[in-house]
Amino acid sequence: MSGLSGKGAEKQTRNEQQEMKAIVKAQAAPGAELRDVPEPEITRPDQIKVRVLATSICGTDYHIYSWDRWSAQRVKPPRIMGHEFAGEVVEVGSGVAAFKPGDYVSGESHWVCGHCKQCLLNERHVCANTKILGVDVDGCFAPYVVVPEGSAWKNDRSVPPQFACIQDPLGNAVHATLAGEVVGRSVAVLGCGPIGIFAVAVAKAAGAAVVYATDTRDYRLNLATQLGADAVVNVTQDDLETFIAKRTDGQGVDVVLEMSGAPVAIRQAMRIARRGGRVSLMGIPAQAVELDMAEDMIFKGLLVQCIVGRKLYETWDTMRALLASGRLNVEPAITHILPFEEFDHGMALMRDGLCGKVVFQME
Amino acid sequence: MSGLSGKGAEKQTRNEQQEMKAIVKAQAAPGAELRDVPEPEITRPDQIKVRVLATSICGTDYHIYSWDRWSAQRVKPPRIMGHEFAGEVVEVGSGVAAFKPGDYVSGESHWVCGHCKQCLLNERHVCANTKILGVDVDGCFAPYVVVPEGSAWKNDRSVPPQFACIQDPLGNAVHATLAGEVVGRSVAVLGCGPIGIFAVAVAKAAGAAVVYATDTRDYRLNLATQLGADAVVNVTQDDLETFIAKRTDGQGVDVVLEMSGAPVAIRQAMRIARRGGRVSLMGIPAQAVELDMAEDMIFKGLLVQCIVGRKLYETWDTMRALLASGRLNVEPAITHILPFEEFDHGMALMRDGLCGKVVFQME
Amino acid sequence: MSGLSGKGAEKQTRNEQQEMKAIVKAQAAPGAELRDVPEPEITRPDQIKVRVLATSICGTDYHIYSWDRWSAQRVKPPRIMGHEFAGEVVEVGSGVAAFKPGDYVSGESHWVCGHCKQCLLNERHVCANTKILGVDVDGCFAPYVVVPEGSAWKNDRSVPPQFACIQDPLGNAVHATLAGEVVGRSVAVLGCGPIGIFAVAVAKAAGAAVVYATDTRDYRLNLATQLGADAVVNVTQDDLETFIAKRTDGQGVDVVLEMSGAPVAIRQAMRIARRGGRVSLMGIPAQAVELDMAEDMIFKGLLVQCIVGRKLYETWDTMRALLASGRLNVEPAITHILPFEEFDHGMALMRDGLCGKVVFQME
Amino acid sequence: MSGLSGKGAEKQTRNEQQEMKAIVKAQAAPGAELRDVPEPEITRPDQIKVRVLATSICGTDYHIYSWDRWSAQRVKPPRIMGHEFAGEVVEVGSGVAAFKPGDYVSGESHWVCGHCKQCLLNERHVCANTKILGVDVDGCFAPYVVVPEGSAWKNDRSVPPQFACIQDPLGNAVHATLAGEVVGRSVAVLGCGPIGIFAVAVAKAAGAAVVYATDTRDYRLNLATQLGADAVVNVTQDDLETFIAKRTDGQGVDVVLEMSGAPVAIRQAMRIARRGGRVSLMGIPAQAVELDMAEDMIFKGLLVQCIVGRKLYETWDTMRALLASGRLNVEPAITHILPFEEFDHGMALMRDGLCGKVVFQME
Repeated sequence: MSGLSGKGAEKQTRNEQQEMKAIVKAQAAPGAELRDVPEPEITRPDQIKVRVLATSICGTDYHIYSWDRWSAQRVKPPRIMGHEFAGEVVEVGSGVAAFKPGDYVSGESHWVCGHCKQCLLNERHVCANTKILGVDVDGCFAPYVVVPEGSAWKNDRSVPPQFACIQDPLGNAVHATLAGEVVGRSVAVLGCGPIGIFAVAVAKAAGAAVVYATDTRDYRLNLATQLGADAVVNVTQDDLETFIAKRTDGQGVDVVLEMSGAPVAIRQAMRIARRGGRVSLMGIPAQAVELDMAEDMIFKGLLVQCIVGRKLYETWDTMRALLASGRLNVEPAITHILPFEEFDHGMALMRDGLCGKVVFQME
Repeated sequence: MSGLSGKGAEKQTRNEQQEMKAIVKAQAAPGAELRDVPEPEITRPDQIKVRVLATSICGTDYHIYSWDRWSAQRVKPPRIMGHEFAGEVVEVGSGVAAFKPGDYVSGESHWVCGHCKQCLLNERHVCANTKILGVDVDGCFAPYVVVPEGSAWKNDRSVPPQFACIQDPLGNAVHATLAGEVVGRSVAVLGCGPIGIFAVAVAKAAGAAVVYATDTRDYRLNLATQLGADAVVNVTQDDLETFIAKRTDGQGVDVVLEMSGAPVAIRQAMRIARRGGRVSLMGIPAQAVELDMAEDMIFKGLLVQCIVGRKLYETWDTMRALLASGRLNVEPAITHILPFEEFDHGMALMRDGLCGKVVFQME
Repeated sequence: MSGLSGKGAEKQTRNEQQEMKAIVKAQAAPGAELRDVPEPEITRPDQIKVRVLATSICGTDYHIYSWDRWSAQRVKPPRIMGHEFAGEVVEVGSGVAAFKPGDYVSGESHWVCGHCKQCLLNERHVCANTKILGVDVDGCFAPYVVVPEGSAWKNDRSVPPQFACIQDPLGNAVHATLAGEVVGRSVAVLGCGPIGIFAVAVAKAAGAAVVYATDTRDYRLNLATQLGADAVVNVTQDDLETFIAKRTDGQGVDVVLEMSGAPVAIRQAMRIARRGGRVSLMGIPAQAVELDMAEDMIFKGLLVQCIVGRKLYETWDTMRALLASGRLNVEPAITHILPFEEFDHGMALMRDGLCGKVVFQME
Repeated sequence: MSGLSGKGAEKQTRNEQQEMKAIVKAQAAPGAELRDVPEPEITRPDQIKVRVLATSICGTDYHIYSWDRWSAQRVKPPRIMGHEFAGEVVEVGSGVAAFKPGDYVSGESHWVCGHCKQCLLNERHVCANTKILGVDVDGCFAPYVVVPEGSAWKNDRSVPPQFACIQDPLGNAVHATLAGEVVGRSVAVLGCGPIGIFAVAVAKAAGAAVVYATDTRDYRLNLATQLGADAVVNVTQDDLETFIAKRTDGQGVDVVLEMSGAPVAIRQAMRIARRGGRVSLMGIPAQAVELDMAEDMIFKGLLVQCIVGRKLYETWDTMRALLASGRLNVEPAITHILPFEEFDHGMALMRDGLCGKVVFQME
């Protein structure tokens, strides 16, 4: 990988406060702006400073950009946006042992407390005190970002920044897909946003016998096919339950990965899973969901896993191995690589669903 | 244990068809009657015939007795009712290898096919072709019952029939409670019908640090206390979420066992579980249930297990060991032992919720 | 698949006892002979009779052929040899529900009792009363074989007999490899006999990041490479521990699959596994093995799995899915397809280690 | 609990270097001495300083005291001994978030690096860079000890110091015993040193149906009985395999916990486990061990777990819950509470095996 050159070293010796251009949520209103802000500095001994090489847009970023109800409650402008990145360490705090300048890293966007019950039990993905990069603290849509050592992750150098930066959503897919057995199983992925199509690829890499994918848009189903789906269903045209029944002799699939958050899809997830099957729920419904729990869930003995975040750091370790070994090729999912200045265009692509991952290359 | 005496041997040599008195669902209408029916005979090489020593009433029996909507769709009268029993083998089919006359047995009420995908995968509790004793085939509210070898289970002789007969619902509790870790955990059991109070006892036997139990009736909460609950909540009087928050420093409990089927309780199950906690759903809701899946389930990373039946035969093996070793004392749950003729009284107790298990002693 | 034609139907109506040519262990001495024996008949209601389309040689067959100490103690001549087969059902017993003439099947070689503790706990691969086809009862090196319904398995029709017949050893590899997580892991397979090279293929199909394979013969290492090994080590030439240390930054591999049974390899298995790693032992050592358990096992916190047989029927279900979906291509492992009469040649190939699987095509 | 009083607060404001009396391994030779040493001070932001209220002797301490081969290689005198303690936090480093003066804590003796592969995978008990308190760094046989925040653990205040200090070995027993299912199982504990008798208690608390314990000394078997063993075997007098065969109908026990490290016991562990059973190895053999792996392990399909340390912090969390809830009563295991000055007497008790845990109360 090129680009991990001398710039970092030079930065390390700098003393005066510098400015940088970052994408900032400036107002409690729709939109964002590229503006000059102070370069972040290390303020605690456990922090590292990273020069961002590539960063990508998450659905969450689009929610903040468009200023939906959740964003309005949670985000306090001005806030530098962005939480998906790959970059080079340029400086480390005095207490940092595991990283040094020149390391090639990405970051876990969920900063965890380390001492709540969940953290002590190694369930840090459900930490009671999580802070999210680019949401609760300043993010990585910027040339530099400062993160705690505990949320940084060393990448394999064979994986270029434009792939390494998308590990946060890829990790969601790895976590959801590999939360149970996949090898030799039939898998249905409901919803082909970025995490959905990543889940298709992960399921195939992990030996799934067959992977079905659904969405309402052919653009996204086409991406799912490129990432390995054996068959796709546009649910605006075909009945999913009929399709699955036909393909599985009426038994249903072994594993359903619900990535859409649509209430109708969540209900279908329960119905298309076989008796004793697994349903992993990752898509976030915007409203309450009504379920026929007796018939569709309890009598069938389903296992329903609610998935959030990535397991620290099992998910990342598996992901690094899959990417570095070439077992997992996510290239078709990166549909757009834009210069940083075109973030409004990137957000428009997100709005219209005419993209997989949109990556900003930093220079 | 007394009572496993010569009667069986005598029956074995009998040739002519005999009659017996059984509790029969005679009409597609509420009620049941004690009437003379032919004694069942072995008709296939894999069957065994059992002299019933004790049998007990399940909620399902009460549903059939009162002829609710589910019963009206499923049960074809006339049908001998009952599926919980303990008895003595009096005759075995020509192909039976594992049982012989004189064996002391109970029976798994779910007769499974053995060759559907679930059966082949050792998930027989979700067999695609289950038939239920006393529902789909003639049951055990009778002096004799014939069952397939594959659904019979040898009891430990130290466990008397009035305890051995309740292993079907006890097995539900064992399955639900031990479907995840319990030792050192905090557990909440929602709903203190027989399976709920059994779950309290199983959780305590398995080393739960603390067990909370809820119901709407003090009679049942009193039973839960007798079976080991550390604290009980009458949800008509106290707010469960407040109670649990206070007891767990706001964290929630590690494990929730939902045994009531009430939609409000299912919603609370999700809310009182800690982040990353386990919710096992066993109670059957009579209608659709509306859930705030985003906040109460997905962001919390819950594991939701839908529990049905008993694992064949892991559940039974664990149950035998717990009963025979004295680790599990279910005596307080057996609130009524009635003569067989008083089934109408037993059904009235069920209707009013003024009982734990109601057992019929056969002679 | 061709060949599943009318012959079976014709046999079904036959009445008189027929003869057939089978490979028989005739004497308590080395060797075997092709001789006329009575065609086996169904004698119990749960049996099925199968016309053998393909059968293959296991190491166990070679042990019986060469009459080693184990064979001399266990096998009672005359005995029809062979336990690996694929064929067509030609007749079923009166109590058989799941199979019918014309079904395309293979068979689990371990006939289990169904009622010991292990069988009841769904651990039938360690049944206390196992009988082995071709060892304890007459086998399948013959045009027809009779097996219990419970040990037959329906194949996917897309898998031809010469591949379907090798599922017994392939199942060993599936069981051993998938007894823990493989996806994204580094795996070392020690010993590249048929089960070893199958394990290489299974590990790759299941998403292993990298698979190393070892043997003492280049012929076999070449097969391992064809089945997907990323790197191979001839342990007569290179030091395995040095090799693994170099490849893993001194950490060791995540998973070791010991398929050789050589004491030195078993010791190395413990040493090349990373701290907290998994070692699955399937190769059978002929003598006692001395281990430095403190340093090589306990302080490292290894998980050591002793693997025998195949899980009934999880292993078979996964195997069918992997074969039918094309995720697992075992073709390079089938090095020889011989006519049935050339069994002495086949045994010579086994003796010299100059083969993968040797298959007999029956006509 | 009394004793967590003002002393700590007073220390916090102290400036000048103080001296304290500690048990020090002063020479590379047998023995130890109580001598004046400087009170330890916090030197890094992540450290906490603890006033020791109670500390106890581990077998490792005795090895260092008697200066065996392992100690001679590993320990560099002078070194303050001891790694088991309970105490009160008197001072915290500038970066410590989770602890404050006055907290009642114990400490995990294995200090882990936090960034090796094992640590990242939440397998910190097999960290590649572990340092052990009282072995590699100065220990807790002293009035004060300084430990990293990451190795401290908050105790429940209902558990008095003389019980809280023994959580390091109790945690070994919790880890080993609960590394698989215990509820309703038969368990054999081989070796009744402190960890063995703790394992007896943990197995009973976790719902084991029956627990057998073995040793060569009646004193220790008597302790095992007090901690809940259902039957004990003095292996100098009775044959363990015969005993277990008789008690289990020849099947063997479900779970074996090997705590002795004796090669003969390790071999017996494999032989008395049932087919498909679990053997957890915790005792450290001083020499190589010869095993009949084919017959005693592989054909039986055993699961062999090598256990080291405690799972951070699942083990501690479970242990706190079991102790605080009263489910686990370890009182009979604390056979001696000595004043600190009598450490030579304590070591003599260890040497003679005439003790359970020997605790030093600090003042």
